[in-house]
Amino acid sequence: MSQHGVPLGLLLWRKIRALGVQSVMGVPGDMNLELLDYMKSVDGLRWVGNANELNAAYAADAYCRIKGCPGVLVTTMGVGELSALNGIAGAYTEQVKVIHIVGTTSTTAQRNRLMIHHSLGPFPDHKVYEKISQHVRAAHCWLDNLTTAERDIDRVFHDCHEKSLPVYIFVPMDMVNLLVLPSSTPSFHRAPIVDYADEAAAVATITSMIYESRMPVVIVDALVARHNVIDIARKLVHLLQFPTFSTSMGKSIIHETHPYFHGIYNGQVSRPGVCHSVETESDLVIDLGPILSDSNTGGFTRKIPEGNLISIHPRCVKIGNSTYKHAGLASILGALLREIDTSKLPRPDFPDLPEILPAKDAGSVTITQSWIWRRIGSFLRPGDILIAESGTAQFGLPDAKLPENVTYLTQVYYGSIGYSVPACLGACLARAEQSREGRVILVVGDGSLQLTVQEIGTMIKLDLRNIIIIIINNKGYTIERAIHGPEECKNMSFWNHLKMLEFLGAKNGKTCSRTVRTKKEFEDVVCLPGYTCPDSIQVLEICLDVMDLPWQLEAQIALINAQSEETQI
Amino acid sequence: MSQHGVPLGLLLWRKIRALGVQSVMGVPGDMNLELLDYMKSVDGLRWVGNANELNAAYAADAYCRIKGCPGVLVTTMGVGELSALNGIAGAYTEQVKVIHIVGTTSTTAQRNRLMIHHSLGPFPDHKVYEKISQHVRAAHCWLDNLTTAERDIDRVFHDCHEKSLPVYIFVPMDMVNLLVLPSSTPSFHRAPIVDYADEAAAVATITSMIYESRMPVVIVDALVARHNVIDIARKLVHLLQFPTFSTSMGKSIIHETHPYFHGIYNGQVSRPGVCHSVETESDLVIDLGPILSDSNTGGFTRKIPEGNLISIHPRCVKIGNSTYKHAGLASILGALLREIDTSKLPRPDFPDLPEILPAKDAGSVTITQSWIWRRIGSFLRPGDILIAESGTAQFGLPDAKLPENVTYLTQVYYGSIGYSVPACLGACLARAEQSREGRVILVVGDGSLQLTVQEIGTMIKLDLRNIIIIIINNKGYTIERAIHGPEECKNMSFWNHLKMLEFLGAKNGKTCSRTVRTKKEFEDVVCLPGYTCPDSIQVLEICLDVMDLPWQLEAQIALINAQSEETQI
Repeated sequence: MSQHGVPLGLLLWRKIRALGVQSVMGVPGDMNLELLDYMKSVDGLRWVGNANELNAAYAADAYCRIKGCPGVLVTTMGVGELSALNGIAGAYTEQVKVIHIVGTTSTTAQRNRLMIHHSLGPFPDHKVYEKISQHVRAAHCWLDNLTTAERDIDRVFHDCHEKSLPVYIFVPMDMVNLLVLPSSTPSFHRAPIVDYADEAAAVATITSMIYESRMPVVIVDALVARHNVIDIARKLVHLLQFPTFSTSMGKSIIHETHPYFHGIYNGQVSRPGVCHSVETESDLVIDLGPILSDSNTGGFTRKIPEGNLISIHPRCVKIGNSTYKHAGLASILGALLREIDTSKLPRPDFPDLPEILPAKDAGSVTITQSWIWRRIGSFLRPGDILIAESGTAQFGLPDAKLPENVTYLTQVYYGSIGYSVPACLGACLARAEQSREGRVILVVGDGSLQLTVQEIGTMIKLDLRNIIIIIINNKGYTIERAIHGPEECKNMSFWNHLKMLEFLGAKNGKTCSRTVRTKKEFEDVVCLPGYTCPDSIQVLEICLDVMDLPWQLEAQIALINAQSEETQI
Repeated sequence: MSQHGVPLGLLLWRKIRALGVQSVMGVPGDMNLELLDYMKSVDGLRWVGNANELNAAYAADAYCRIKGCPGVLVTTMGVGELSALNGIAGAYTEQVKVIHIVGTTSTTAQRNRLMIHHSLGPFPDHKVYEKISQHVRAAHCWLDNLTTAERDIDRVFHDCHEKSLPVYIFVPMDMVNLLVLPSSTPSFHRAPIVDYADEAAAVATITSMIYESRMPVVIVDALVARHNVIDIARKLVHLLQFPTFSTSMGKSIIHETHPYFHGIYNGQVSRPGVCHSVETESDLVIDLGPILSDSNTGGFTRKIPEGNLISIHPRCVKIGNSTYKHAGLASILGALLREIDTSKLPRPDFPDLPEILPAKDAGSVTITQSWIWRRIGSFLRPGDILIAESGTAQFGLPDAKLPENVTYLTQVYYGSIGYSVPACLGACLARAEQSREGRVILVVGDGSLQLTVQEIGTMIKLDLRNIIIIIINNKGYTIERAIHGPEECKNMSFWNHLKMLEFLGAKNGKTCSRTVRTKKEFEDVVCLPGYTCPDSIQVLEICLDVMDLPWQLEAQIALINAQSEETQI
């Protein structure tokens, strides 16, 4: 190798930076320290340093969801690597681009199977952990060959982007300082597999079905965001002006202020009238980027007649019984936008959804589930990010009507509790890099908070100031009480949330921590300057009744119970 | 199935209880709630409810290390299961018995590959997570067949015990309430593979080598504890009266107050004189239950002449070039204890180790690394448990001379930072069940604390009162500064440790939290009644200089640097 080359560690960070990445998550460890050093030599790249590795993975996931480029985390072989695995699996199942870089033992130690700390058992195979993550990644490489290293990095980045899935890069510690000669041309290229004839046929079928339809509707789902086609989807929906719905996972992709937006379609767990519009009145449903998990379909209660349905997936289009392979979301949406003749478009009436009646407990002085979610919605402003934890918040927040350009972030399919706190960190870092104004509002339950609370320390360390942490305190996992009875989880530990910021090192933690129980108290707090123009992390604990539930959760549980009774008959 | 059977969920808990288990770790989730219900029907079994799943795994690991019976944790498919994986890998590599019970989707959902929340990707294989954990377990079963369920449970328990390794039991949620007829006789039996001829030959060789030796020594290592032969090893060592050493991982197995105990043998990272005694002066080294990882051998710097070495492993004995297969630790130690003729034993002189000279900074008014570890040792009393986190504490605490019947607990080979805090919980629960007096003293760094801090909330919730948490505050990961330079990890977040107990819900958290910087302050605190007879969790933050290191760590790093210079020549 030439002495004029670039150290492999530096090459890796330069390539990471070239993807658009500016913040790198992770935890330092003896096997990645030298690798981390090289980060300092790359302009615009900073080391975050998380409190633990699972949190780093969650943060990297959210960073990608906001910025579109991959989230990156660095861990140490085994101990750190495996701690992050659940976060990576979440990114895999929800199709989020994450690059997990693992600092490993040296190639010599690997060859000799030395019992280096962090290894597994006697005469250890140092590559065993790589086998463990094979199920939750799209690609991986070992940077143990200088000749192929650059090409390997590029191949892995390519797969991460193309499939919108996590990938792994393993870096033996003795390789980091070795010199490579970076290639001046792209070292790896794989043309996307597209069947242009199939794609053209799909576009022709879709346009003619649209022109012939009387009452078309559009559903916008999560993969539109994950596969980076939000802008084009917004333009298409705006061009069509058809009644448009989101799923729980797709919420906020389409601006909710447009007159054609009509709320969340979630099978039988939708607002009155929504199911009727989509399943009965409509004669054509265009479903963009669907993830059809139970939690995103009202527990599999969608009933759209198959003949009415066009599903545009990331890599194929399904229309009735036909599948157009190798025709992808991005190119199909682009072609539709170009080719649709607006003069031929139907002009369907917007559905006349029944007014939402006041809840039975609408007059309550204390804060109720029927009140709080919509109130949080009206607290938001354009540019804000809203993050919802699994649990009651995730069921309730679909009711929040979002202003334009609010991004809603939650993990509905994987549903790993604890995700939201580190996600808030990752989202906040990503948003700052976009030079966009706005607050980051985290809604987390007192139960879920306990899994990953330490990451709030990282927010304080980094002096992030535009974060409002809303803790829904219903004294434990109310969602599990709802599923299984009020006695459940009675023995959770109860924290003093007003001390949290102080403990985690915030200088003004005491003055920025508040508890509210009544609507009046809530209103008094959210108009404070610290909330309208936050310049410090705010904590707002909202005390709710232990057995108060969002209506969506009640409906979902009623459905499950009805189904299980049916099964028993 | 008979209507007089026992629900499968109940059968599982009864069998868990029969192993000696009284506390079950874990986190509730929708797929394990019904299973957890049945725990209430088993006398003497209690649900702990941890703050997160990784912590639950660490706590289960430590529970086993104290009690000898398996530690048990319950998680939910995917999300919880994978979060615990790093803790299970640690148990695997350090040979700790842990039973990981995973509540999964129903067998119907599995068969139909439904996209139930927590699943992986589209058309998900619900059993994919089971493949992920195959590398870190000795056995597993799916309780999806009523006919074989009991036998499967017993087989898995058997392997857990015999191999002293983690095992998995997957419980589909639709199986929990189904009735099984428990068998009245053991449903599973597999005789241990023992070659009695080999065993007898090994014992004969060992005894004759002992009789012929002039200066035999014994090394006691971790697997003696893991394979539940502490008592018999203590008796044997006492019978022999040979100079006896521990490793870092084997510390506290042999009472350190006996005149024949001479400290920690850790290759070249041992006290002056120890290496000479073991490697040069001795003509026979009996090594009991070794784990020969870098971190337990002074970085592979042990130099015992092969012809002098008898290694007794859990399943075989190695003497020079010969291996006696199928001759195990328990039976060999038992046979030696029975067969040794004390009249033929050599009476070696005890080694004359040089006095430990006062450290250069012995006169320091403030607390130093050269002072604190031995001082913690003399603070201990018989019956106490001492838990050391990876990092400076793990390097320094081998200097602590332990009173009789103190149990020392740390994770040296796997070395996953964050282990110690949940381990403290698990150890404390286990000790309470043994009806033995004593305090549980946790020594954790300010860096490591951040990974798993929330488990202190579980200690408070359960009203555990005999825990003293010593936080070594050197403003970050000093061990990584030592390895890689003082600038490392400068950007860690700094917490206000005095607010920790209050935040996590302790009623008297404020009065039980203290900081000390000088030796005088330390002495004033540790003689308080709250420390001598604690009836409340105590937090003691000890501030140390950022670059002060235990001598063992300095020696280890000097060795590594010397080795790497040699390699370069």
